[in-house]
Formats: sequence, C-alpha cells, structure tokens
Amino acid sequence: MVYITRRERFNAAHKLWVDEWSEEKNLEMFGKCANKNWHGHNYTLYVTVKGHPDPHTGFVIDVKKLSKMIQRLIVDRVDHSNLNLDVPFIPAGMQPTTENLVILFWKELEPELREEACELHKIQLWETENIYAEYFGE
Amino acid sequence: MVYITRRERFNAAHKLWVDEWSEEKNLEMFGKCANKNWHGHNYTLYVTVKGHPDPHTGFVIDVKKLSKMIQRLIVDRVDHSNLNLDVPFIPAGMQPTTENLVILFWKELEPELREEACELHKIQLWETENIYAEYFGE
Amino acid sequence: MVYITRRERFNAAHKLWVDEWSEEKNLEMFGKCANKNWHGHNYTLYVTVKGHPDPHTGFVIDVKKLSKMIQRLIVDRVDHSNLNLDVPFIPAGMQPTTENLVILFWKELEPELREEACELHKIQLWETENIYAEYFGE
Amino acid sequence: MVYITRRERFNAAHKLWVDEWSEEKNLEMFGKCANKNWHGHNYTLYVTVKGHPDPHTGFVIDVKKLSKMIQRLIVDRVDHSNLNLDVPFIPAGMQPTTENLVILFWKELEPELREEACELHKIQLWETENIYAEYFGE
Amino acid sequence: MVYITRRERFNAAHKLWVDEWSEEKNLEMFGKCANKNWHGHNYTLYVTVKGHPDPHTGFVIDVKKLSKMIQRLIVDRVDHSNLNLDVPFIPAGMQPTTENLVILFWKELEPELREEACELHKIQLWETENIYAEYFGE
Amino acid sequence: MVYITRRERFNAAHKLWVDEWSEEKNLEMFGKCANKNWHGHNYTLYVTVKGHPDPHTGFVIDVKKLSKMIQRLIVDRVDHSNLNLDVPFIPAGMQPTTENLVILFWKELEPELREEACELHKIQLWETENIYAEYFGE
Repeated sequence: MVYITRRERFNAAHKLWVDEWSEEKNLEMFGKCANKNWHGHNYTLYVTVKGHPDPHTGFVIDVKKLSKMIQRLIVDRVDHSNLNLDVPFIPAGMQPTTENLVILFWKELEPELREEACELHKIQLWETENIYAEYFGE
Repeated sequence: MVYITRRERFNAAHKLWVDEWSEEKNLEMFGKCANKNWHGHNYTLYVTVKGHPDPHTGFVIDVKKLSKMIQRLIVDRVDHSNLNLDVPFIPAGMQPTTENLVILFWKELEPELREEACELHKIQLWETENIYAEYFGE
Repeated sequence: MVYITRRERFNAAHKLWVDEWSEEKNLEMFGKCANKNWHGHNYTLYVTVKGHPDPHTGFVIDVKKLSKMIQRLIVDRVDHSNLNLDVPFIPAGMQPTTENLVILFWKELEPELREEACELHKIQLWETENIYAEYFGE
Repeated sequence: MVYITRRERFNAAHKLWVDEWSEEKNLEMFGKCANKNWHGHNYTLYVTVKGHPDPHTGFVIDVKKLSKMIQRLIVDRVDHSNLNLDVPFIPAGMQPTTENLVILFWKELEPELREEACELHKIQLWETENIYAEYFGE
Repeated sequence: MVYITRRERFNAAHKLWVDEWSEEKNLEMFGKCANKNWHGHNYTLYVTVKGHPDPHTGFVIDVKKLSKMIQRLIVDRVDHSNLNLDVPFIPAGMQPTTENLVILFWKELEPELREEACELHKIQLWETENIYAEYFGE
Repeated sequence: MVYITRRERFNAAHKLWVDEWSEEKNLEMFGKCANKNWHGHNYTLYVTVKGHPDPHTGFVIDVKKLSKMIQRLIVDRVDHSNLNLDVPFIPAGMQPTTENLVILFWKELEPELREEACELHKIQLWETENIYAEYFGE
C-alpha cells in the first residue's frame, strides 16, 4: 500500500459567527475572527489517497487526474469565494472552521474516488502557517 | 550601512472593484478577484530598515521595538479586517492591491522611523506564495 | 474524529554530554554537539489534538486557547533558555535530544488537555530543517 | 516509542514510458512526463525510524549515522543520475514514479536498519512541492 | 515606482558538458553535473517588473497577464524539457547554467514587456534550495 | 553582470550582553536575549557574488568552489559554536547580532574572492524566520 498526496491552494473570505448568540458572546468566543466585515486566508489543501501502484504506469492514481478532480469538486467552488455565503456544500450556519472544512471536503471527494483503483485516506487543510486540520473519514 | 528586516503577518478580506465600472467590466478586468462577497489572503509583510549598528548593542534598531511599531501602525489595523471597508488609512475607492498597500504602509511607517537612528528602506508584501510587491519610497 | 495542529517556535541553547563519560568518548559519540560552550537551535513545535468539532463553534479546541496553553506550559519555560541548565521539567543529566524533548513536552501538556473536550495526539519537534522527532504518548 | 526523521535531497532525470506501448499511448497516459529527451526533479526524501531513546545518549539512532546510511544506500546512487538508466536497484522497465521509488528505497534501507536498535517506519519522497508519496513497508 | 513579482515553476533535465573538452576535463570541472545520462531540477522562477500602479486598477501590470506571458514565452518551452536539446532559444553548446538561463529568459521576456506600461526589472531563478541566479538586464 | 547566490547553514549559541552595563540594564535592553546561560539559533546564510558568466562553463563562479570557501572561512568556524566565546574573528565584547555578523563575515570572505573572476556583492543572514540582516560592503 502506497500513499500519494497532491497539494492544491485556494484563497477565501470567511468569518466565525453563531447567529443564535449575541454580538458580545460571538466576540468573546471568536475574537477577531468574528469581524462582521469578514477576513480571509490562503488555504493549502493536501489530499492523500492510498492503493497499489499499477504494474505498467507505476501510478496509484494519475496525479494529474486527481488534481483535476480536486479542482472540479473543491477548488473551483471555494477559490476566491466567501465560505459563509457562496459555497453550496457548506450548510448555512455551519462555521467554516478548518475542522468542519476537512469533513465537508471529504464528503465531496470520497464518492468519486470510489470509482478509482484507490481509496481516499486523508484530507489536510492549512489555514495559516500555524494551524492545520486533518480528517481520515471517521 | 547594514539592512535589517522584520517579518510580520496578517489575514484579511478584500475585493478588487471599480465603482464607476459596470459589473461586466469589473469581472472582465479582475476576474474572480471581483467576487462581490469578498475573498481573502494570508499576507506576509517584510519591513527593511538601514543604518549603522550601534557600537554597544550591535543593533541598527532594536528589532523587538521595530516589531511593536509595525504591529501598532500596520498589523493591528489590518489583521482580520476587510481592506476595502475597515482600514482608515486606505482611501475609499482605492483598490487594495499589493502594489497600493506597499505605498500606503510606507506612509504609515516612515514618519515614526525618522525618530530612530535608522531609515526605512523597503516594504515588501506577499499576497500569495506566487505574488509580492515592493516599494522603496520613491 | 478530527485532528487539529498548532505550530509554536522557540530558540534555545544545549549540548549533548554524558557526565560519566570521558571528553574523548563524548566527542566520539556526539561530535560537534558536545562543544562545551554550547550551541543552539530554532526549534519548531507542532502539537496535535483530536476530538469532535463542537456543533456551535466548529472547534475541536479553541486554537487560541491551545496556543496559550503551549506557551504557558512549554514555550515560556524553554524559549531563550539553556535546555541543559534552565528548564525545571528536564531532569538533570538527561540529554536534551529532540527524542527526549517530545516525551517531556507530552508529560507537561497531556494532563491539562484532559480537562478539555479533546485528547493530545502527537508532539512533533523540528530541531533543524533536516531533523524532527514525534511522540504519540506510548 | 519515539519516531525520528532525517531529510536528504537529490536531483535526478527521468521519464515515464512503457516500452510495450505506442508513442501515442505513452503521450496520452504520461503527457509531458513522456518527453523522450527526459526531464528532472529536485527530490526531497524523509526517512523515519522508530524506537526507544537510549538512556545515556537520548538517541533512537545517531542521526548522523542514519544520514550516512541514507547517503550510502540511496543518495550516492541516485543523485545527479538518470533514474531510468543509471540506478542498479531500479529494475529495467519499471516506471520511476514516486510511488515505485518509495518501495524501492525501503528495500534498500530496511535490511541494514535491522542491525540497529530501531526499525524503519516510513519513506516519504517529494517530487515537487505539490506531490509526495509515502510507504510504510506493507 | 513599485516592483511586482510573479513566481512560476518548471521541471527540466540538463547536463553541463563542453564538447571541446575531454571526458576527464568535463568531469573535473563539472563533477556529477556532467553525467552523460543527464540529471534534472525543479526550477523556481521569479520575474519582477516595475512601474506605477494604475489609478483605477491599482495594478502595475495585471499579474494574471504577466503569468500568462511567462507561461507562453518561458514555461511552455522549458517545462518537462531537456535544456540542452529541446529549447530553441538556448543556443547549441551553451551551458544551461542558472547564470546563462537568467540572461536568456530576460531576452525572451523583455521585448514583449515593452508594450506594457511597466519595465522588466529582474529575472531570478532557483535551481535548488541552495542556489539561485539573478539578472537585471545589464 | 549576473548575480549568483549560495545558501549555507549553521547552528550556534550566543547571548547579547554589554559587560560595562548592570544586569538590570542588560535585561532591560536585551530581554530574554541576555539570558546568562545562553540561547541559540539555526542560522541561514546567503552569499551573493557578481560577475560575467564564463563563455565555456557558464559559471560566474563554480558554486561548489564558492560553497567550500564559505564552509572553510565561515561555517567551519561558527557551526556548533558559541558566538561570544569560540570564534576568533568575532572581537571579544562585540555583540554577536545579525547586524554585526554580516559585516564580520564580509571581512572574512571578501579578500579571498578578490582572487576569483567575480566580486562579493552581498551577505544575508537569517537568525529566525522573522529576522535577517544584509551587508553590501559599505
């Protein structure tokens, strides 16, 4: 079993805000991340799949194909977007934290990868150089 | 003459949009950067000053002091902000491109640095790993 | 289960030296790392915790809280220190190798994290760009 | 159990090409990677071993010794080489993909590491900043 | 005057070899870089232009346009190529060193940039993380 | 004129301390950097030389030769050292700040480079990821 990882990037705006809470409570919990005029990040996404290298091509998956799949299912829908407002697969009211995003990205990618000769293993998402989240599907 | 550089970071939302233009013209010129719901970046800022090392301290400037000055004059005012809406020293209607930001940051920092035994030399601002702007004051 | 990681940094001096050994044996084993006048490193620390994102906040843990905890329990006690002489939780005579440090850092952090709704998963410590150690608690 | 990782680097040429296939099929499958005049990469290799820190030295393994072993068994044989033509331990006709290389590197390193008080845990190989493969021995 | 820089990347094979010299002299001068079966690198290219930000767009140049120009004039012609054999604008017999490449890249880019409201300022090319060359046009 | 740069690295201990000053004044000026038991850094050094590429080799200078020169004149004398105590070319009592180090490194390297067909252009030294100093010889 070999693991192969592809990096992609996107830039997006977001804020952290719970509608049921007062402004005070939101600011207390989320600090500057609750700025009502939004802030944003350069996100770096690593998608890892696992499988056996094909005896002819030496590929677990054609990485160009994997890249296009991540572009189509994730990057094209979140790049230069507002994560709270613009992305159909992020439920309204769900906080666009890195923790929630890795789960949501898994749900978009995993079904299509079932048709390949490999399995999705990990979604890793960096929000800044100091913070990243990871999800392994369970 | 020795040059000393301090790195700082901030995260912000912005969009590129000329009010006098139609939506079509804005999208044609700015593409995804004109998304009306904003997008954002992790910005990395390098501030370079030049001077002669003090014979006792070996400092051109106390870098901790320089860092606090950059924090107070720049980072505290742009971090987790919307660069189009929230920052007093960015004129309304001016595009918050990296090119314009390096000039505006220079104007905030340069007068205070005149009181130090060193001179501001360069403002460098990275918007993504692929794009940065630099300004030398003229 | 989602994993969330926070990066912190510190700078410290150390040397590798076994008191019971002769200078020759120390130099043979540790080479330049046994320089009796010390040397030092910029250490980069990644702390990973795991848990379920809170349904309101989307947080496994408030990363700012995690950062403060790492600062208080680790960084404030090792930054700009001599790891052989200055740090109460490093036993006298124990080599301050990256391997031993990741175990010692785990022991400082793990008990306090038990009071959070998440678990400590991994301590990763980079000594240079070429060397890092990891510990998972067992 | 502590995991310790050493980074090494090498530069090499290669191409992806299946001799039994037509030029058209090779270009369709491998695109630019099938350029018959070769292309190349700066490879970055991370080797992870696991074990218990020695009570005197604090080492799972002497990292300088590990580095020399990786140099002798891997880097000296692949650096500034053509991976399709010059490397005895890469079978003729096997595609030098990152997926195949991590398996082949494991086979070179693992037997010698058995004589140490630690075990090989992982081979990780970066081909570009966007692609890496990992192998854990099974 | 503001300076704006765009990063691009390409992967290529090359060797250093002077035809008029014996194999011994080539190996003595170029060492492993003279391997007759080639080796290769991941090259990172930074192109810097200078000019005045447009009062409406805030652009010295539209960076997407600059990126496409670099792709068309440089990257499409050198990526996944053999720099000694495949690139029309590299004269036969000229060593494809980073020093020579920055001059050759300048000659390809500079004439087209004259039609823009900005000037080419610098070509910077990284061959490995340890080596880069720069050219300013004279 | 082409500029070529070589990166080297070293690890060292130091402290900032003016003997003529009281402990209070030293701590007030230098903060944690005045810890009497030292602290340390991973330093990254970039040496830039300028000249014309040789028509046969394409080299401004053989970078391997430049690397060995930097190793012999700088790295071998500062790596795994105490910069306050162990380095003959750092005058006793001079603060080993990055600002002073770049001047001292210039003085060691510049005379030997005069015998090459190129000139020393810049010494750049990174102390952490947030601080670097540069010196151009005047």
